[in-house]
Amino acid sequence: MRLPVQPSLLTPTQARAQFRTGALPLTTSGWCRGHTQANLLAVPHDLAFDALLFAYRNPAACPVLEITDPGDPHPRSLAVDADLRTDLPAYRVYENGTLVAEVPDATDYWRDDLVAFLIGCSFTFEAALTSAGVPVRHIEQGRNVPMYVTTRECVPAGRLSGPLVVSMRPVPPALIDTAREVSEAFPTMHGAPVHVGDPAELGIADLARPEFGDPVDLHPGDVPMFWACGVTPQAVVMASRPEFALTHAPGRMFITDQALVLPA
Amino acid sequence: MRLPVQPSLLTPTQARAQFRTGALPLTTSGWCRGHTQANLLAVPHDLAFDALLFAYRNPAACPVLEITDPGDPHPRSLAVDADLRTDLPAYRVYENGTLVAEVPDATDYWRDDLVAFLIGCSFTFEAALTSAGVPVRHIEQGRNVPMYVTTRECVPAGRLSGPLVVSMRPVPPALIDTAREVSEAFPTMHGAPVHVGDPAELGIADLARPEFGDPVDLHPGDVPMFWACGVTPQAVVMASRPEFALTHAPGRMFITDQALVLPA
Repeated sequence: MRLPVQPSLLTPTQARAQFRTGALPLTTSGWCRGHTQANLLAVPHDLAFDALLFAYRNPAACPVLEITDPGDPHPRSLAVDADLRTDLPAYRVYENGTLVAEVPDATDYWRDDLVAFLIGCSFTFEAALTSAGVPVRHIEQGRNVPMYVTTRECVPAGRLSGPLVVSMRPVPPALIDTAREVSEAFPTMHGAPVHVGDPAELGIADLARPEFGDPVDLHPGDVPMFWACGVTPQAVVMASRPEFALTHAPGRMFITDQALVLPA
Repeated sequence: MRLPVQPSLLTPTQARAQFRTGALPLTTSGWCRGHTQANLLAVPHDLAFDALLFAYRNPAACPVLEITDPGDPHPRSLAVDADLRTDLPAYRVYENGTLVAEVPDATDYWRDDLVAFLIGCSFTFEAALTSAGVPVRHIEQGRNVPMYVTTRECVPAGRLSGPLVVSMRPVPPALIDTAREVSEAFPTMHGAPVHVGDPAELGIADLARPEFGDPVDLHPGDVPMFWACGVTPQAVVMASRPEFALTHAPGRMFITDQALVLPA
């Protein structure tokens, strides 16, 4: 008899196998504790320079972990035996900037000219937050992290421009410095927060209505902390309307084999 | 009456103005103490993704400091009022991998589709070496730094592949650790050495015959230290034979406005 295993204790290989065969969790937040999670942006080769230049110019939002060769769905360094077409829980397909499909398998949408960018995800440092005593409210509440389109413009690159997207985690005031220090130690996972406090300063009108993911309940006194988010490329795709882009579904990430050294 | 000014004391603006009006020093090593120097690689837009991917995959040899928009010869962050077509002492022009010209002004070779990559240069940390008591032999001897094509292959990217090029500085044994520590603090200027000691391990047959720059005399006991070099893209261009590339002449760099905080 096979006992069910907590998602946090699965190996990345086990998690990817589940996603490949159809498991569709609400989010990968909390899965495979101690392993790097990554956002996916795949664009035609023709747009790849603009995309890489955009990432280079916006490193907080788009810390690039790996770039595949055109048409190759297999990462070379972040994971072995992984297939980017099938091993994420869900994908979004954009045509001319419009979301045309959300699918659990991207095989039918893969193209021979696609270049995939794997971009660090802040889910990666959530285990370190927990270890440091910082509560992660969306995990406590069994939800996806809330993500918001801000009024901050990214630095444009070629045909790509658009707003910064942020993820939000509510943190008790006494733990704000701890949360900042912990996340700062993960520069390729978005690093330190881009803003702490009043959502209006980022142009966010209502925390209860995130553009991506789920709203999360603040405990009394909790202060919202905002981190640059790897969904930014999706907002940029929507704003810039390139012919085609394939991405992960927000909050449903590619889980890599890359292990972290977490605080005890 | 204008007094002559030592090159090390010139401001970057003054140095660039000299180069623009025809000054052609043997090398910019030692110029504008405390300012970042950069290698230039400009390639047609069609090759720019491969070039950026190559740089991304070979960060020790190609630490990218800035990337210009296609056709734009003006850097936006590293220097103000600078023109990459005229403000370096000398340029090399490659067609199909062959060096076809070395010129003091690249205006006639500039193209509307060129994307320029400015790549950190180890000349930048030489002032810090000197401050830390490490002699810089090629400056003492009034020469360009010696640079060698090694037998180490870079990680290929698209149409670009080729060998690593290194610069060499002879260092007294007692100061090797100091030189390593000082350079390590400049990760975007090639950082720590890639090799210390026997040149044969890099496939270098004869230190007296560098492929670029000048040979330099070792003092008795000096140990050769080798750093990844921003001339690597030129060796890669020669090996990969793209239609066109414009670069700096080895050792004659773009001097930026970016100031360093040097050890006292």
